[in-house]
Amino acid sequence: MVKNMEAMLSKIVKRIKPSKTEKEAEKKLIDKIFGKIKKIEGKHIEVMHCGSSARDTDIGGDKDLDIFVLFPKKMKRAEFEKEGLRIGRTVFKGKKWEECYSEHPYVRGQMDNFVIEIVPSYKVEDASAMQSAVDRSPLHQKYLLERLTEKQKDEIRLLRAFLKGIDCYGAKLKVNSMPGYAVELLILYYGSFMGCIKAAANWKNGEIIDIEKHYSDPSEAKKKFNHHLNLVDPTDKNRNVAAAVSYNQFARFIAACRKFLEKPNERFFFPEKKKGWPISKIKKMFKEKEILILKIPYPKNAISDVVYGQIKNLTKKMKTRLKLNDFIVKSSGEWTDEKSIIVNAFEFESLEIERVKKHLGPEIADAKNAAIFLKSHKKIISGPIIENGRWVIEKERKFWNAKEFLKAEIKKIVVKDPLNKTIKKARVVEEKDILPIYKKDCEFASFITAFLKNREDFLDW
Amino acid sequence: MVKNMEAMLSKIVKRIKPSKTEKEAEKKLIDKIFGKIKKIEGKHIEVMHCGSSARDTDIGGDKDLDIFVLFPKKMKRAEFEKEGLRIGRTVFKGKKWEECYSEHPYVRGQMDNFVIEIVPSYKVEDASAMQSAVDRSPLHQKYLLERLTEKQKDEIRLLRAFLKGIDCYGAKLKVNSMPGYAVELLILYYGSFMGCIKAAANWKNGEIIDIEKHYSDPSEAKKKFNHHLNLVDPTDKNRNVAAAVSYNQFARFIAACRKFLEKPNERFFFPEKKKGWPISKIKKMFKEKEILILKIPYPKNAISDVVYGQIKNLTKKMKTRLKLNDFIVKSSGEWTDEKSIIVNAFEFESLEIERVKKHLGPEIADAKNAAIFLKSHKKIISGPIIENGRWVIEKERKFWNAKEFLKAEIKKIVVKDPLNKTIKKARVVEEKDILPIYKKDCEFASFITAFLKNREDFLDW
Repeated sequence: MVKNMEAMLSKIVKRIKPSKTEKEAEKKLIDKIFGKIKKIEGKHIEVMHCGSSARDTDIGGDKDLDIFVLFPKKMKRAEFEKEGLRIGRTVFKGKKWEECYSEHPYVRGQMDNFVIEIVPSYKVEDASAMQSAVDRSPLHQKYLLERLTEKQKDEIRLLRAFLKGIDCYGAKLKVNSMPGYAVELLILYYGSFMGCIKAAANWKNGEIIDIEKHYSDPSEAKKKFNHHLNLVDPTDKNRNVAAAVSYNQFARFIAACRKFLEKPNERFFFPEKKKGWPISKIKKMFKEKEILILKIPYPKNAISDVVYGQIKNLTKKMKTRLKLNDFIVKSSGEWTDEKSIIVNAFEFESLEIERVKKHLGPEIADAKNAAIFLKSHKKIISGPIIENGRWVIEKERKFWNAKEFLKAEIKKIVVKDPLNKTIKKARVVEEKDILPIYKKDCEFASFITAFLKNREDFLDW
Repeated sequence: MVKNMEAMLSKIVKRIKPSKTEKEAEKKLIDKIFGKIKKIEGKHIEVMHCGSSARDTDIGGDKDLDIFVLFPKKMKRAEFEKEGLRIGRTVFKGKKWEECYSEHPYVRGQMDNFVIEIVPSYKVEDASAMQSAVDRSPLHQKYLLERLTEKQKDEIRLLRAFLKGIDCYGAKLKVNSMPGYAVELLILYYGSFMGCIKAAANWKNGEIIDIEKHYSDPSEAKKKFNHHLNLVDPTDKNRNVAAAVSYNQFARFIAACRKFLEKPNERFFFPEKKKGWPISKIKKMFKEKEILILKIPYPKNAISDVVYGQIKNLTKKMKTRLKLNDFIVKSSGEWTDEKSIIVNAFEFESLEIERVKKHLGPEIADAKNAAIFLKSHKKIISGPIIENGRWVIEKERKFWNAKEFLKAEIKKIVVKDPLNKTIKKARVVEEKDILPIYKKDCEFASFITAFLKNREDFLDW
């Protein structure tokens, strides 16, 4: 069994490890860009290749490169940003590029089939001197390169592929999952892929991983971060590397680890691309299930992470309002193509609820409130009657149809920029409005199918 | 205003007070029966006319007479019962009579349009010497006759009529209301009808009335009886005269008193007989509302109080089971003609609920229970999926139709004698099975109408 596992894993490593040709092409491109940047006149003091490709922990076919341009600590923020953009633009002169924004602006461009980000950063010695959120990347790079063994780099590749396979990779709000740096730290801590999987299968809520023992008492770290997964950044004791991991993704990872130990399988690393169900099946499911879909135009030039945060929040708000009005939401989900549409999907226990609602009034003995109750209710359908010693009436609900409620409620919801630009155009759409998108966009098809299926894929691997 | 009230009340007293002719006829009949009983050879030592008619607190047209035949304390129970029956039979020789049973057997017969109960009782000096539950009736009689003024007797009549008018009179399980003796004590305590009404309008849960101050500390009585209305029997400190009054009837009385003070009205004393709605309206309501009716044959020769207790209990049990299976019962009621049928009616929020039920499993981190949950559930409709860090599945319900559920569940319910004789013949019936009874039995019609109307009548007086 152990032997089989080893064989399987080394087979997988071979398959996911970037080829020599790939690495050589990468190296060549990096050198070229380094050369370009060094030649540009300016105050930048160093160029660094960061991220998984720089640490040789990346998976083959991953064509994203992060190039950090380091500036002196004392440089003013405005100049730092301006200079960062200027260098980026100069690098991609004559190529395809765009200006992006995370904590500060940077340039993303395309060259030789690679997507390259040129990120300005302050050169700092340690986390305490940080001036920009990206400044810690070079610190992470240094920390890992000094400690990771060659073998561990492949183990990182395995864990990364595993997490990607179960849809639990990446710190973006869209997935609320394991950031790349966390994956590397987990292997550093547990030593190997299997070590990590076995440990994670037994993780408890409030797990603490403190590699550098920044906290002599682990409960201190737990108290400070108060998260289900507390992975202390070895380069910054005040940061939980796993802060973005949602409780659900934390739980999904644990469950997948258990399933993998029970039934090790290559499919965890190479899941079949989730296909959408055939249209006929979708039509059938829409008939059988009680689904409502909210369609909102994607705000122009909006940062997807911000939008994901907003639509997740919108779902939450809507669910609270639905619940307060006695509509029972069984499940919900959100999706966007990050270009033209945002979709919030809700599955209800029932799209129509009772027209009439029972209102429990005060105890009769509570004379003051009983009098208020009797006076304040108009348009009573039945009652007032005394039940279990309390006044009780029935009134007609304002909304007993979830669609009508959603239509009215979406108009009242207040959101911030950028979603406020398009929320007024939100529509509660029918199955027929959805099918054209379903046919066109296979990512949407996969989202809707998963939403209707509502089952963890890895259980079937 | 006060004058108007006085005028109205004295008008009502005139109307409800038995006429002289009525009282004379009664007196004549009592004398006749007394004569008969005294002539019978036996160990009985005294004959007593008890109850409201004996205390001159009865309402005109009330043709029920209670005659107590007192036996020596030392008489054996078997002989006491035998002798009591013998005397009863002898009195009604040649007349219509029947054997009844409450705590012990007695005879009820008809004579000159009166219904007379001949009740054997032990002659005791005080409650501590009681040997039979009815032994306290003569003690009550003595206590009241020594204290009530002539004026108060009319005030009792008013309160009795008021309580009858709002359906809150009588200690029987059918109504769980104010016993006749309690009505007399309330007037003795509060002095007058209006005094009682004003006081009751401000009653609080846990009210204590201890006329003879048996308890130096009122909270002691409250602790002992632990009831919403604690009316200490002046002749027996260990008895709460209002023990049978349900919290709902307690509350209804309070609410009716408030309404009467707000809008004094003769209708509280002379309510129109509750008519059933026309058949067309009933049919309409059955269509609009979600009603199920359980019909059970009335067990032969069963005591109605016992049966009422059982069917109330049956309703309660059924509601608990319905709730556990996610059926929402909005209201329920029970009725019997005390001869041939028993009816339990339920109004549902919806007769059909979702076919599919979401089952929340354990947290993923709880490895042991998560594994048990995944293994123990078969026939899953959707899932398992991880939601908020827990395993969640959907399964088809065994019952999603309230009628099917009720049909199946009534077969499983265990009841005691006498209801156990007929429960197997219980049926969940349709509107069409109900209409013939509705047309025939105006009491049933009034029950069903009130059940569908679900509004306190006195609010409209």
